[in-house]
Amino acid sequence: MDIATTRKPHERLAETLSGEMQQVNQLIRTRMASEHAPRIPEVTAHLVEAGGKRLRPMLTLAAARLCGYRGQDHIKLAATVEFIHTATLLHDDVVDESKQRRGRPTANLLWDNQSSVLVGDYLLARSFLLMVETGSLRVLEILSNASATISEGEVLQLTAASDLSTDEKIYLQVVRGKTAALFSAATQVGGLIAGAPEEQVQALYDYGDALGIAFQIADDLLDYRGDSAATGKNVGDDFRERKLTLPVIKAVAQATPEERAFWQRTIEKGRQDDGDLEQALALMDKYGTLDATQADAVGWATRAKSALSPLPDDPLRDMLLDLADYVVDRLN
Amino acid sequence: MDIATTRKPHERLAETLSGEMQQVNQLIRTRMASEHAPRIPEVTAHLVEAGGKRLRPMLTLAAARLCGYRGQDHIKLAATVEFIHTATLLHDDVVDESKQRRGRPTANLLWDNQSSVLVGDYLLARSFLLMVETGSLRVLEILSNASATISEGEVLQLTAASDLSTDEKIYLQVVRGKTAALFSAATQVGGLIAGAPEEQVQALYDYGDALGIAFQIADDLLDYRGDSAATGKNVGDDFRERKLTLPVIKAVAQATPEERAFWQRTIEKGRQDDGDLEQALALMDKYGTLDATQADAVGWATRAKSALSPLPDDPLRDMLLDLADYVVDRLN
Repeated sequence: MDIATTRKPHERLAETLSGEMQQVNQLIRTRMASEHAPRIPEVTAHLVEAGGKRLRPMLTLAAARLCGYRGQDHIKLAATVEFIHTATLLHDDVVDESKQRRGRPTANLLWDNQSSVLVGDYLLARSFLLMVETGSLRVLEILSNASATISEGEVLQLTAASDLSTDEKIYLQVVRGKTAALFSAATQVGGLIAGAPEEQVQALYDYGDALGIAFQIADDLLDYRGDSAATGKNVGDDFRERKLTLPVIKAVAQATPEERAFWQRTIEKGRQDDGDLEQALALMDKYGTLDATQADAVGWATRAKSALSPLPDDPLRDMLLDLADYVVDRLN
Repeated sequence: MDIATTRKPHERLAETLSGEMQQVNQLIRTRMASEHAPRIPEVTAHLVEAGGKRLRPMLTLAAARLCGYRGQDHIKLAATVEFIHTATLLHDDVVDESKQRRGRPTANLLWDNQSSVLVGDYLLARSFLLMVETGSLRVLEILSNASATISEGEVLQLTAASDLSTDEKIYLQVVRGKTAALFSAATQVGGLIAGAPEEQVQALYDYGDALGIAFQIADDLLDYRGDSAATGKNVGDDFRERKLTLPVIKAVAQATPEERAFWQRTIEKGRQDDGDLEQALALMDKYGTLDATQADAVGWATRAKSALSPLPDDPLRDMLLDLADYVVDRLN
């Protein structure tokens, strides 16, 4: 059997792009330094070196290469994207009062919320400086816009998450903000820096957008259906944290008055007792909302793949196609 | 008596620049909107409309006008500077767990820390978008750099504030970060956008830097010497919060072993009893550190004024000169 078909697509991407990813990692290490405040690289290294998959910077590199880019600015853009992502994670962990991230204690737990907030701010500012170095105002506009959309999505989630009137449309806005905005910006700026035709740049944006949505829906589904050994999360964390995600939104939409009262008590009011998670899962099962959510994720993955049709036939394009499948294959 | 000489300089600036400041305020209102998350303008308006003095955006407008600028981009830059300042305040209040700001309850108290963190992020991203609209990469570089320096100064303060080995050099780094960086960027970009000669741009940077340092030293002094009715703060807040500022740093540098043990207990270990603030004030009095701190503030105000010599003789320049005096005159 061909090795290329047995490895996971993000691993194949990582192998194909390994030389450039080394440069990205080196740039990240250089730019997270601080002459005056050693706390900054300490906190950043804790998160950066915990070894996330580096999916977002790889998307930027892959998009640029796929569009025939031969320069060096995609390294800067990929590092920028990872800095924005890291800053977001630092602030998210404060907002969610998280204790674990990538299998390690969170920075807010190891140091304090203050350090997480301020180091996140530092990384955001450094990411803008990196972008300025590329000299492209269009890139600056896209990534600043993504950064605004991310915060907007998170604020919306803050107010909508425990509100039963949150419907699928609002859920999609939250997901576009908190996840898809950076995916789509990552792919789009890769195409832009390569000087790709507008149709291809748009295709890359559409791919990143749909991939990010598929990714987040799958993540929200795994919270209820996942193998906690594989995901590193406990089943039902979102339920306990009173976060309305797609499987519950679909169940609420079809709820009887009695079931609605259950959701009001457990999600809106947050009064949860033993057995409530089991009851929630039973209601999702009753309406088949986990399967329906999976179908939605698959639908977005399919859209992501279709979006890539204007791009040249290339092994990198195949990996991006496979990546869209993989994001939802995790569910099986 | 001439009205112009009896009004405070920032009030005269506000009057002279009132037409432009109205445009800045209008732009701030437009750009703090969010289509999807109404929490964002709520939180922002709470702070923005509490009526700070808007000193930083006025510095940008004044610098641009003083250098003969006739365009409209200084309005955007002034709004950018105020957005960065507002984002910093939102995050600071989370970091310091503050309860009051500009005489009103803080956003983190009225809403929650989450909203303050995320709305701050949103404002930072929006400020970058505004800068991008000016199309000046140099401006983007200066303001992103200021933004990084601000966070770096705050992180440094986090680790240095309760550490008795913090000396005047480190204190100055913190002050340059948390306060002077935005003042100097505000004046510098005003000159830049006007296309002023490099000597004038540098002069504006030096003025903002020295003014910001004078301002922060005066603020730290007022914490021990201020009239709490006028400042809205209680005498000794910094001592209670174990923040090493210049008056204490100067006292620690001259402390006998016994006095050092007092500072170690109260600042480093944070074990404070009744009468400790009085004892701290007595030690500052013994070494004359409040007077010495005031002399430092006056020194920086003098540097700020000297810096302005390459700029054209103009009523705006006189107001900037008077502003430097006013920053330290508050101390009398």
